[in-house]
Amino acid sequence: MVRNLEYPKKPQNTVKRYDGRGTYDLGAIHSIINTTSVLHVSFAPSPDQPFPAILPMIGVMGSFEYPSSGIDEPLDCYLHGYVSSRIMRLARASDKGLPLCVAATKVDGLVLSLTPNSHSYNYRSAVLQGYAKPVETDEEKLYAMRLITNKVVDGRWENTRIPPDNVEMTSTTILRVKVETGSGKIRQGGPHDEAKDEKRDDVTEKVWTGVVPVYEAFDTPIPSTTNKVKQVPSYLDAYVSQTNKENRQAALDAVNEP
Amino acid sequence: MVRNLEYPKKPQNTVKRYDGRGTYDLGAIHSIINTTSVLHVSFAPSPDQPFPAILPMIGVMGSFEYPSSGIDEPLDCYLHGYVSSRIMRLARASDKGLPLCVAATKVDGLVLSLTPNSHSYNYRSAVLQGYAKPVETDEEKLYAMRLITNKVVDGRWENTRIPPDNVEMTSTTILRVKVETGSGKIRQGGPHDEAKDEKRDDVTEKVWTGVVPVYEAFDTPIPSTTNKVKQVPSYLDAYVSQTNKENRQAALDAVNEP
Repeated sequence: MVRNLEYPKKPQNTVKRYDGRGTYDLGAIHSIINTTSVLHVSFAPSPDQPFPAILPMIGVMGSFEYPSSGIDEPLDCYLHGYVSSRIMRLARASDKGLPLCVAATKVDGLVLSLTPNSHSYNYRSAVLQGYAKPVETDEEKLYAMRLITNKVVDGRWENTRIPPDNVEMTSTTILRVKVETGSGKIRQGGPHDEAKDEKRDDVTEKVWTGVVPVYEAFDTPIPSTTNKVKQVPSYLDAYVSQTNKENRQAALDAVNEP
Repeated sequence: MVRNLEYPKKPQNTVKRYDGRGTYDLGAIHSIINTTSVLHVSFAPSPDQPFPAILPMIGVMGSFEYPSSGIDEPLDCYLHGYVSSRIMRLARASDKGLPLCVAATKVDGLVLSLTPNSHSYNYRSAVLQGYAKPVETDEEKLYAMRLITNKVVDGRWENTRIPPDNVEMTSTTILRVKVETGSGKIRQGGPHDEAKDEKRDDVTEKVWTGVVPVYEAFDTPIPSTTNKVKQVPSYLDAYVSQTNKENRQAALDAVNEP
């Protein structure tokens, strides 16, 4: 059996609290990033500014050099979103690029216990730390644009007006993050109460305990006012129903103790 | 008519890209924070560390001094989650507290246009910047714990074993963020394509355009193995169905042009 690849444990990414929930497995961490609609990307904007900046961005794992790499292999994180001239300047200012932190969190359930202090969420979260540089070549940009579009709806890229023209290529900025390290944290299962409360009949007879499964749901696609394609295409229809099924199942599976 | 309160526009919170989507309205920004399950909180961990830290936390707006304040009035942000000894040290190290950035993003829809470059999300996002200190008094801690618990499920606090005992009070850390400034960004409506593509029959006859509404859904509550309350309580049942209804409606409303 081949051992799964793991990110190195460094002071800044080692899970300390509830460390049994921590994971450094590349496959687990990359999967959370790839199935989260919006990533939160943080960086230090300038030395005179005390507050880090946070931007919501779309991102996906990939490897332009080794495009056939699996999800559990070393990958870069491609980010798309509003890349200001400030970020571009910071990213180009050093050879390594702009140090940033990419976070993804999915809530799988509300975990309701006897006492407020034991309440929790079932969740899957991942954090990557790495150095970002703008993608420079058209070939790599196209590679990343396709990955990002097909992350939003699987198969969408091939079913739109492609390839992007020169103006579109020039106006699109993609950041490639070379990952230094990462970590994930996963909480599954029902509520865990303390014996002092579980033994009290006046409490257990009054307080309902359990899990409310939570997931991201897609509703029926609504055509735009200018749409001329009469039926919702099968790839889109399939993606909507398949994703709904998978997301709901993940929330239900998370109710079981790991 | 009373003018709505707005956060001051500073260099670090002024919306530059698509500035028509920006908002500084306290009510709008606080509502996004309060209806987002998980907030992403970022701060600079130490001067020798290039990467900002990001933590997923639960948070809610409130005012211990003026508890009857409306959502559109000046409020603090109370945060609950894993507060390490490192964060506590940083928060106590200065009079003002630890500078941090709180981000909330809700995806309301996948906006599918003729060409990949015009694809977008409908979304509501909010960012707060402020200084965090641990809440010190039991009175304020209780106030915040109730707010946070009832954010997860409305009415849950009153329906659990309360008040927390001494051990629970001591082991719970809540951060109070005094907000310096904030901003929000909201995208609504259908896809916006360019005339060059809308005029091409070969494109419009092939590419479906429109919006896939997206929302956070709750499934039927699942009792724990130790639960002794036979029926799902009415406050929980009502919260689940009401939230599902509101979340879905928000996603459908977002399809319309603002």
